[in-house]
Amino acid sequence: MIILNGGSSSGKSGIVRCLQAVLPQPWLAFGVDSFVDSLPARMQDSEAGIEFAADGRVSVGADFRALEAAWMEGIAAMAGAGASVIVDDVFLGGAASQQRWQKAVGGLTVLWVAVRCESTVAAGREAARADRVQGMAASQADVVHQGVTYDVEVDTTHTEAMACARTIAAYVS
Amino acid sequence: MIILNGGSSSGKSGIVRCLQAVLPQPWLAFGVDSFVDSLPARMQDSEAGIEFAADGRVSVGADFRALEAAWMEGIAAMAGAGASVIVDDVFLGGAASQQRWQKAVGGLTVLWVAVRCESTVAAGREAARADRVQGMAASQADVVHQGVTYDVEVDTTHTEAMACARTIAAYVS
Amino acid sequence: MIILNGGSSSGKSGIVRCLQAVLPQPWLAFGVDSFVDSLPARMQDSEAGIEFAADGRVSVGADFRALEAAWMEGIAAMAGAGASVIVDDVFLGGAASQQRWQKAVGGLTVLWVAVRCESTVAAGREAARADRVQGMAASQADVVHQGVTYDVEVDTTHTEAMACARTIAAYVS
Amino acid sequence: MIILNGGSSSGKSGIVRCLQAVLPQPWLAFGVDSFVDSLPARMQDSEAGIEFAADGRVSVGADFRALEAAWMEGIAAMAGAGASVIVDDVFLGGAASQQRWQKAVGGLTVLWVAVRCESTVAAGREAARADRVQGMAASQADVVHQGVTYDVEVDTTHTEAMACARTIAAYVS
Repeated sequence: MIILNGGSSSGKSGIVRCLQAVLPQPWLAFGVDSFVDSLPARMQDSEAGIEFAADGRVSVGADFRALEAAWMEGIAAMAGAGASVIVDDVFLGGAASQQRWQKAVGGLTVLWVAVRCESTVAAGREAARADRVQGMAASQADVVHQGVTYDVEVDTTHTEAMACARTIAAYVS
Repeated sequence: MIILNGGSSSGKSGIVRCLQAVLPQPWLAFGVDSFVDSLPARMQDSEAGIEFAADGRVSVGADFRALEAAWMEGIAAMAGAGASVIVDDVFLGGAASQQRWQKAVGGLTVLWVAVRCESTVAAGREAARADRVQGMAASQADVVHQGVTYDVEVDTTHTEAMACARTIAAYVS
Repeated sequence: MIILNGGSSSGKSGIVRCLQAVLPQPWLAFGVDSFVDSLPARMQDSEAGIEFAADGRVSVGADFRALEAAWMEGIAAMAGAGASVIVDDVFLGGAASQQRWQKAVGGLTVLWVAVRCESTVAAGREAARADRVQGMAASQADVVHQGVTYDVEVDTTHTEAMACARTIAAYVS
Repeated sequence: MIILNGGSSSGKSGIVRCLQAVLPQPWLAFGVDSFVDSLPARMQDSEAGIEFAADGRVSVGADFRALEAAWMEGIAAMAGAGASVIVDDVFLGGAASQQRWQKAVGGLTVLWVAVRCESTVAAGREAARADRVQGMAASQADVVHQGVTYDVEVDTTHTEAMACARTIAAYVS
């Protein structure tokens, strides 16, 4: 199991697809975006669910946390059942988010990967995307890494997604 | 846990979103489409993965089946961990597909739902969509229900998604 | 040139794709959704551009109107240059919206088509879609037809998109 | 009017969105992708329309060319009617493609922009995208610029979309 953590527009999704392309075995890819898509529409803009403020700040509530915990257990169970799984997440809670994953994965082997990107560069890439609230990249760039420990760190500021993926793939044997 | 089965363009996704809207508790929604999206791109057009023929026939291979089994276990584990989960699937193997889910869910309570739609109507709706290979609706309309047993059956030929959802929701207490 | 007018979730896009499928000649399809996509992101949530209120009401401002007028002239020019063109629009201004199109198309032959759908049915279909602000269907269902004159009228409440398309296609020789 | 030309995955769309963000006036954005979306589905995989081969080669036929000519005239007419318009295109025919646009725009002022990207870098970015046939980036990277003359050239190999947009915006007064 590989878990990537990085702020919005740091380039996680591109790295995930490159990882799926360069790793010889088939790996399933899931992420916090697909989890949010699985929620009822009314939770995608509510205090108990997840809220995206106009300035890019994201906050989540109790219902989100409860369902997220079950989702994490399920993703871990896929890996436990023999599938190779890549997850990309945004650790809004920093170390606390990592602990939630650690609880879910139990004894499974996980490669923890930091996906970093300089805040101003990530903000520029956010402006180049059609589908993002502006401001998320800047507000998340640093906070998501606070107190988190990693096995590998990549930085997309000056490195292409494919090169980052090759760096990560070298840790998977 | 609610598992909906029906052919392509039978209206499953619309019913799922209406179910999420009318059910008072928050339900997570997953489906075979999101599973296919989680596969490496190279498996989305390969013999070992999944192939979409020009005439709308879909075939899946050994790697697909192996990862699907792990995915099913993981989805069941989310329900086992306390989340309410709706799944929409296309039982290409009919009764055999249902048995795969039964094995994955174990002792969990499942509401099995048939989503039917007359073949010609489903084919017309397929033509009205931007994102589907033409021919899938007709080739799947009947075969996916062969040998499958259900708790509820809805038919979208003359009934709106919202009305179908209310019928299904009445079975969830 | 064919111009379809109807409220949100009345089924215009499905009819357009069916029309493109059943008409023997190739027809280009454009619509107000593609126009909105062509605007700068900052205009997609601003008073001078277009605003989507939480209750589904849509309002547009001066910059939107100025660019829309140029867009209409350009679409009409495509038809004037020999392309067959289908447009789907939401006449938020009713008769005034139709007059804007009449000014743009000048002497070109246009088939004016009403796409109607009962408000409650359209609202149910809106709930079945992943990508719409809830409330648009109900607020637009009737107002968009006020004072507008048509050559053909179709109603998707009880009629499939493909059948509506065949009705419309019969007027195109 | 600004016309950007570059191969697939060279980064045109990101530059266009950044241009829309940094230019003080509102600019409409259109591109060959939106034109292809406006075609009937059957032309998106046919000899007379457009074909995407498994190796990434793209070929277009007579119906495509005829409708494209009308589309170009219509886009030029939007600019002629007073709208500021950015177009991104892939000049599969190199100089011949530029001549088609020159014929359509007539006396309008156009800023011609090359968007370059090293072939191997573009191919890596293509692998990082979910929605592209692999091979297009490499096959188009150089050929689209053959014989084309420009007012500005940007290269996304080592330069972010936002920085490229600022370079281009400096030519627009």
